Amino acid sequence: MNDDIGRLLISCPDRPGVVAAVSHFLFDRGANIIHSDQHSTEHGGGTFFMRTEFRLENLLNEDIENAFKPIAGRFGMDWRLAYAAKPKRLAVFVSRADHALLELLWQHQAGDLAADIVVVISNHSNNADLAQRQGIPFFHIPITPETKLQSEQEELRILADRQVDTIVLARYMQVLSSNFLSQYPARIINIHHGFLPAFMGANPYQAAYDRGVKLIGATAHYVTEDLDAGPIIEQDVMRIDHRHDTDDLRRLGRYIERVVLARAVGWHVEDRVLLHGTKTIVFG
Amino acid sequence: MNDDIGRLLISCPDRPGVVAAVSHFLFDRGANIIHSDQHSTEHGGGTFFMRTEFRLENLLNEDIENAFKPIAGRFGMDWRLAYAAKPKRLAVFVSRADHALLELLWQHQAGDLAADIVVVISNHSNNADLAQRQGIPFFHIPITPETKLQSEQEELRILADRQVDTIVLARYMQVLSSNFLSQYPARIINIHHGFLPAFMGANPYQAAYDRGVKLIGATAHYVTEDLDAGPIIEQDVMRIDHRHDTDDLRRLGRYIERVVLARAVGWHVEDRVLLHGTKTIVFG
Amino acid sequence: MNDDIGRLLISCPDRPGVVAAVSHFLFDRGANIIHSDQHSTEHGGGTFFMRTEFRLENLLNEDIENAFKPIAGRFGMDWRLAYAAKPKRLAVFVSRADHALLELLWQHQAGDLAADIVVVISNHSNNADLAQRQGIPFFHIPITPETKLQSEQEELRILADRQVDTIVLARYMQVLSSNFLSQYPARIINIHHGFLPAFMGANPYQAAYDRGVKLIGATAHYVTEDLDAGPIIEQDVMRIDHRHDTDDLRRLGRYIERVVLARAVGWHVEDRVLLHGTKTIVFG
Amino acid sequence: MNDDIGRLLISCPDRPGVVAAVSHFLFDRGANIIHSDQHSTEHGGGTFFMRTEFRLENLLNEDIENAFKPIAGRFGMDWRLAYAAKPKRLAVFVSRADHALLELLWQHQAGDLAADIVVVISNHSNNADLAQRQGIPFFHIPITPETKLQSEQEELRILADRQVDTIVLARYMQVLSSNFLSQYPARIINIHHGFLPAFMGANPYQAAYDRGVKLIGATAHYVTEDLDAGPIIEQDVMRIDHRHDTDDLRRLGRYIERVVLARAVGWHVEDRVLLHGTKTIVFG
Repeated sequence: MNDDIGRLLISCPDRPGVVAAVSHFLFDRGANIIHSDQHSTEHGGGTFFMRTEFRLENLLNEDIENAFKPIAGRFGMDWRLAYAAKPKRLAVFVSRADHALLELLWQHQAGDLAADIVVVISNHSNNADLAQRQGIPFFHIPITPETKLQSEQEELRILADRQVDTIVLARYMQVLSSNFLSQYPARIINIHHGFLPAFMGANPYQAAYDRGVKLIGATAHYVTEDLDAGPIIEQDVMRIDHRHDTDDLRRLGRYIERVVLARAVGWHVEDRVLLHGTKTIVFG
Repeated sequence: MNDDIGRLLISCPDRPGVVAAVSHFLFDRGANIIHSDQHSTEHGGGTFFMRTEFRLENLLNEDIENAFKPIAGRFGMDWRLAYAAKPKRLAVFVSRADHALLELLWQHQAGDLAADIVVVISNHSNNADLAQRQGIPFFHIPITPETKLQSEQEELRILADRQVDTIVLARYMQVLSSNFLSQYPARIINIHHGFLPAFMGANPYQAAYDRGVKLIGATAHYVTEDLDAGPIIEQDVMRIDHRHDTDDLRRLGRYIERVVLARAVGWHVEDRVLLHGTKTIVFG
Repeated sequence: MNDDIGRLLISCPDRPGVVAAVSHFLFDRGANIIHSDQHSTEHGGGTFFMRTEFRLENLLNEDIENAFKPIAGRFGMDWRLAYAAKPKRLAVFVSRADHALLELLWQHQAGDLAADIVVVISNHSNNADLAQRQGIPFFHIPITPETKLQSEQEELRILADRQVDTIVLARYMQVLSSNFLSQYPARIINIHHGFLPAFMGANPYQAAYDRGVKLIGATAHYVTEDLDAGPIIEQDVMRIDHRHDTDDLRRLGRYIERVVLARAVGWHVEDRVLLHGTKTIVFG
Repeated sequence: MNDDIGRLLISCPDRPGVVAAVSHFLFDRGANIIHSDQHSTEHGGGTFFMRTEFRLENLLNEDIENAFKPIAGRFGMDWRLAYAAKPKRLAVFVSRADHALLELLWQHQAGDLAADIVVVISNHSNNADLAQRQGIPFFHIPITPETKLQSEQEELRILADRQVDTIVLARYMQVLSSNFLSQYPARIINIHHGFLPAFMGANPYQAAYDRGVKLIGATAHYVTEDLDAGPIIEQDVMRIDHRHDTDDLRRLGRYIERVVLARAVGWHVEDRVLLHGTKTIVFG
């Protein structure tokens, strides 16, 4: 049963004994480790990252978090425990283009996305049907320069009401304010339609066309105040050639955008993505 | 220093406490875990595989193997300890084609292959220069149906003399006898010029051409008595189209063959490949 | 306007003058060549294949086909002229799995599939909604060993009524009879969930898992009486590893199946796929 | 025989009749078209590009270039005729790193590179053996700020003496002067160790590491005065993850660099690369 599965996420200064302490703790409580991934940023010194997936009967009832605190304290850990039985609650923000939203909805329905999509919010109305068809509430919240702050307040209220954990910008063409971003640190995922750090900004396919690149790409990243510069979660590319004009790039690019975003969201909701400064560690 | 790096390879029946016991053992002796990979073949029951790379001062002088035996016994482990300071000793077998040999020699010289190539053996003489240029002894041992067993005896003697650990068949077009194979179980790596299990046998590029596939591939695998059916270590493919004739496939195929073989050998010599019945676990 | 675009598909014995004759013919009638692809199966002798896309005002009203007949006769051409203004009429056959159907419907709706999906036929009822949502008629035609021939008669009637040109088997788990196949030669496209010719038959993912391959694939091909042996249109693969069980392969495989099928259908409906014996030429 | 193979490269304003005129011309002279690729930059108007490979007995003796001039004049063509019997003469410039040079030498020796490598020039001496082993003259020409112009004069003399057609910068870490570049327009190919236009400049692997990208790449391009901004011929990428440090990126990157450069050079010497402003058209 999924109810028994926990994921322990840890980062701390790298020193001997961390793995021994954690595995001993889990063994003592009767947990069985399913997977465990570790990473040290340097050979000695540096930061140690660890993701351990384990199975423990009555996980939800045992007070394992309190029991772990002494160990966490001893090693100076930044840590959290995630429960497979409590899937993350996602809000999807979208503008007119539907492909990235569709992919998420489809993976959700197919059981391939281990999360709940609890609300879809858009500054346009055209994607209402898509969401509602799967019984997901849809909010049309137009954005104008004048109403932007007010609209964001409304969005934040909706997110709070629904206890949204993570926001996915599935081709949402609005820039979120600093205030908004600060409330969901490392919990807003954007899909950029270019291979970052090349082609930052508004029209990456035109820029790629003009430069004559032979591959186009897409980049899923956490959103920070520094536009298009947040920690990269996933990227991929596809081959193009001289026969493709800018419209072709836009059309073909949708197929990379949707898979790159879905992969990044899939890893995030399974707690496989750990933040390391301006970069990510993905325990795939 | 590399002298301090050990790799502990374990497989055993999967039950709670293995990771705790191993990590505790290493911690107690002052070792620092650099990487650790684990795999359970099933969720509960099944077999547990583990590769732990650690750093321990004076590793070569400490008698760590004896100290580990009680733990190994308790969990019914199949295990071994490999030392980075003692790189594997490779023999490369080759026939006329030079591309796979060249890639191994090049990676060896570039310091990208963590092993020693101690001898090159061929049933042809044309590749003698390649080997000798890097100071590697070359033996020309022709094979005919009549002399086959005798030639193999000679090869085995050369391998024994040089304490060869692993044999790489870098496009060696002779079938080794059961007797020969039995002396190097899971220590002979072959490159097959096709995407196994499709295109087994002698002329995979012709077969691929005749079938009209859109991708051709290569497969690196451990050699067993069952021709082309040994455990697969690595595979890759490349795109072809109707413009390519059989000669083109042979020519293009060389580029996949050489990288697939080099990748497989690279993983093998770093003790990243564990055998699981007729399959492999690769801790990449 | 699309109304002006024609595609001339030719195959004939390879001899000098074909390109000159065709391009002269088109020039004389005022056509402008947009793209032209050619392929000779051998350097001299062999068969010559050509696909020429051109623009000609009033293409639909001019009697260009009659005018071309003398040239076709002179060179012994097997040929046809396709009109972009008359998109192919597709029937999609599907069983329970919805992913391949969904991809085709989505590409259709997004304007990325230059064809009309005029009917969806299934031996199950669960995908009715998907089709009807886009206004596409859905027929539920169960198949049992006893009713098979009768059911096929019904299907053929539906296809004839709707002037269906091409049938797409989007994970349709029934074998079509010889009689059925003979009525749509090189016009039935199937997606096989394995990298053919490996893993023919009913359960390719299980077979791939058992063999321990490092890549899984999918193959789109024209259906012939020889099961899983028809001309291959497109194939692709993705990387897997020891952590994936058979269910994972099935789940991951869906993502290759849907893109490989959609790509093959996309090329077919744009008349980019020419048959050459048991193989295909794809002018991509 | 190769002696009979010619390649006609054309660019001109796009208007009806070009293909007809060229194919007619070739047919009239008894040539047989092997391949022909065309590209129009726009649908109507724009520029038309064409590469036609043909076979014509006594090609070298016939005065086909003079015969073609009237047609070229009529359509305002920029054109040239290349002869397979006269392979391009390459100079390879290299600094300390040997991987890109090695790949070119290997492909050359294997008969996969349809060109002659007539000289290797380096600002270091360590790669002398590699070149001389294949009987290729090697010149060690050190570069200092003071001697740069003088050294370039010496290089230009060597290139002129050997009638070098194309220069390949196979990880040559010196910037060539404007004067030097102007003498080989669109005939100097560089390999940049980054996915352009990201990571221009001196240390792309460090920049890629710092940004935390998930793919690293390499770019082969014609060299222009605008550093790292010349027309791109080929690019490719490979996947990396958090376990790779900057040294790993440098090491892994060599494998993409060498294949990307070799592919670009291979296409160039077969006259498959046509310049279109700051971009390329590659008839692959």
